Amino acid sequence: MKIKGFSFSAVAAGVRYKGRLDVAMIHSEIPCVTAGVFTTSMVKAAPVVLDMDRLQRFGEAQTILANSGCANACTGEEGMEAAKTTGRFAAKRLGIDERLVLLSSTGVIGEALNVEAFEKNMDALVGGLSPAKFDDVARAIMTTDTVPKTAERTLILGGKEVTLIGVAKGSGMIMPNMATMLAYICTDVAIDFGALQKALRSANSRTFNRITVDGDTSTNDMVLVLANGCAGNTPITILDSPAGTAFAEALEDILKDLSLQIVRDGEGATKMITVRVESAGSELEAEQLARTVANSALVKTAFFGEDANWGRILAALGRAGVSFDPDMVDIFFNDVQLVCNGRAVGGQADSRAAEVLKEKEILLTINMKRGVDVAEIYTCDFSFDYVKINADYRS
Amino acid sequence: MKIKGFSFSAVAAGVRYKGRLDVAMIHSEIPCVTAGVFTTSMVKAAPVVLDMDRLQRFGEAQTILANSGCANACTGEEGMEAAKTTGRFAAKRLGIDERLVLLSSTGVIGEALNVEAFEKNMDALVGGLSPAKFDDVARAIMTTDTVPKTAERTLILGGKEVTLIGVAKGSGMIMPNMATMLAYICTDVAIDFGALQKALRSANSRTFNRITVDGDTSTNDMVLVLANGCAGNTPITILDSPAGTAFAEALEDILKDLSLQIVRDGEGATKMITVRVESAGSELEAEQLARTVANSALVKTAFFGEDANWGRILAALGRAGVSFDPDMVDIFFNDVQLVCNGRAVGGQADSRAAEVLKEKEILLTINMKRGVDVAEIYTCDFSFDYVKINADYRS
Repeated sequence: MKIKGFSFSAVAAGVRYKGRLDVAMIHSEIPCVTAGVFTTSMVKAAPVVLDMDRLQRFGEAQTILANSGCANACTGEEGMEAAKTTGRFAAKRLGIDERLVLLSSTGVIGEALNVEAFEKNMDALVGGLSPAKFDDVARAIMTTDTVPKTAERTLILGGKEVTLIGVAKGSGMIMPNMATMLAYICTDVAIDFGALQKALRSANSRTFNRITVDGDTSTNDMVLVLANGCAGNTPITILDSPAGTAFAEALEDILKDLSLQIVRDGEGATKMITVRVESAGSELEAEQLARTVANSALVKTAFFGEDANWGRILAALGRAGVSFDPDMVDIFFNDVQLVCNGRAVGGQADSRAAEVLKEKEILLTINMKRGVDVAEIYTCDFSFDYVKINADYRS
Repeated sequence: MKIKGFSFSAVAAGVRYKGRLDVAMIHSEIPCVTAGVFTTSMVKAAPVVLDMDRLQRFGEAQTILANSGCANACTGEEGMEAAKTTGRFAAKRLGIDERLVLLSSTGVIGEALNVEAFEKNMDALVGGLSPAKFDDVARAIMTTDTVPKTAERTLILGGKEVTLIGVAKGSGMIMPNMATMLAYICTDVAIDFGALQKALRSANSRTFNRITVDGDTSTNDMVLVLANGCAGNTPITILDSPAGTAFAEALEDILKDLSLQIVRDGEGATKMITVRVESAGSELEAEQLARTVANSALVKTAFFGEDANWGRILAALGRAGVSFDPDMVDIFFNDVQLVCNGRAVGGQADSRAAEVLKEKEILLTINMKRGVDVAEIYTCDFSFDYVKINADYRS
């Protein structure tokens, strides 16, 4: 994947582990209009605090400096100093203002960032910048991820080809308001800050904010979109225009692609499950019901066991904080109806559902018969390996 | 355990499985003042709906008829008819009004109650009533429980000895507003309905509502207290009196004992963890913070792995919906301080914490330095066996 005006690099700097790519750089020839959304946790890592401040003040960036192995979270003033220092190394070597560098980290919380690893490797990192190394960035930001995650979209705006390429990481600590979930989108579209930020907020709310692996939200989540304008389209200033809408759709599409890649690679996941709540009284209500089902450990272990245990689904709905009549609820596994008006359908439904449960991707549809609103939450099952990965993570 | 005026019985009726005690009866010679608290789920099992109605209308009961193997939840009108019918069998055989029989079920959701099993075994059940069979009740209501759970307390009120004996079951689907959590307390205290219900609500909020195994709330939770007055104490009518306070404390004490037995026997649990939040701005805030930590799959798997991963604890606090300054938080494992003002203490703290983590019961204390309020939530770790038990439960 390539895109006009951007180059990429990654090195094995030994931030925490030896012999794996762990520091990455995304760099644009010229400053980019830049939008960002960040974790809603009260406990925000130093790079999150720093980037939020820089984007709020300047709305532009030219470089992302990212690392895995260390989250630089719960590290106090020294952590903030460390983030700034590593950014300064990059700015100096690139010959740009340090405020144009955004920092991004993922890994263990509470350990000091290995600043020296950045200093020693900055020449190699910047020297290695190339338009062809996007995949190296994807690999460098992986933690418990088993596969790198990238996506690409193109669209034509007023005769000009516009490209978006995106990279993401995330596998555990994935829930509502994002997760140890990092995603960077590079695009050559010409757009102003207001329109880009609005497009990102909207797209993010229906993609990264609709996935959950384990219900835990990270201290380090961020999605950044850098737009350098090199496509030469008439700059988008109003999102509610034909060009604005087309770009917003492409952005949502690429974020959805990346977010589903994260769910499929959920820690220990053997299946991906879409929990779709239909005919709810409002979109918020639909989302709340779907999210409660998607986060239920009992529902997720039943999927792992390939057990069509719809009672657990109804029990999860019952504690979602939404008022409803259980005797109206229908439940489907793909096209197999298991529950009609709160009761088992019986007959062949159970054996047909058992067949559905052998599949790797399952659509669980819940019809509330209360209204017209719909929401989907994307999740995975809960396996032995989730426990294994998370009992052993730091060792 | 024995108590004046009460007798107990249990039989292997084959409600779902053969050859194990699965139907139990608790019976008082005379009608009892009876208080109850029930699941807050929107999806309530038939016996829950029936008992809530009976207690609200009459405030008294003489008999509890309980079963394991089938929850009689999500079974519609036929499920309600089945619950009433089994109660009628008991009432007829005992020669009492059917409204004095309370029903209670636990087991798989969505399957029809095996009414015939009750009918065939009612003679044996009632015929077997004996003051000495309380332990049989404890065994008959077990599902994934590995040990029966009973407790006893005595106190002296105005020279009269008052006894409380209690039985509980619960192992998974255990969270906030109780769980597939059944508990029955028999006492010979003389007390009026208002005082008993108030005492139960208060005691329950600090005991059964403060435990969590997996964050799932059941359709069948209930705690019932039957008071037959046989102790001959001056009837308690005001809870805020010396006798009322003494009884309320004993009730809270026995409920806490039973609720901790449930946590220790949590599905797959290898450790019991008390999450204590101190110096919070309010008790509600303390409870919310403690509950979020206690329900975090990442925190629970770290305890299973004996990994002092305090970063996950801070991350869980961060998403609890409470506004606080992370740089004020202290964290202790037993008496070992791991975090001071949001930062790692370092030095020997990690190795000392590793020693603490080998223990079977661990106190995790979190000091918020915001106020004076405290709350504790009781939970267990999250192991391979939790997944195994819940992936296989129905098969």
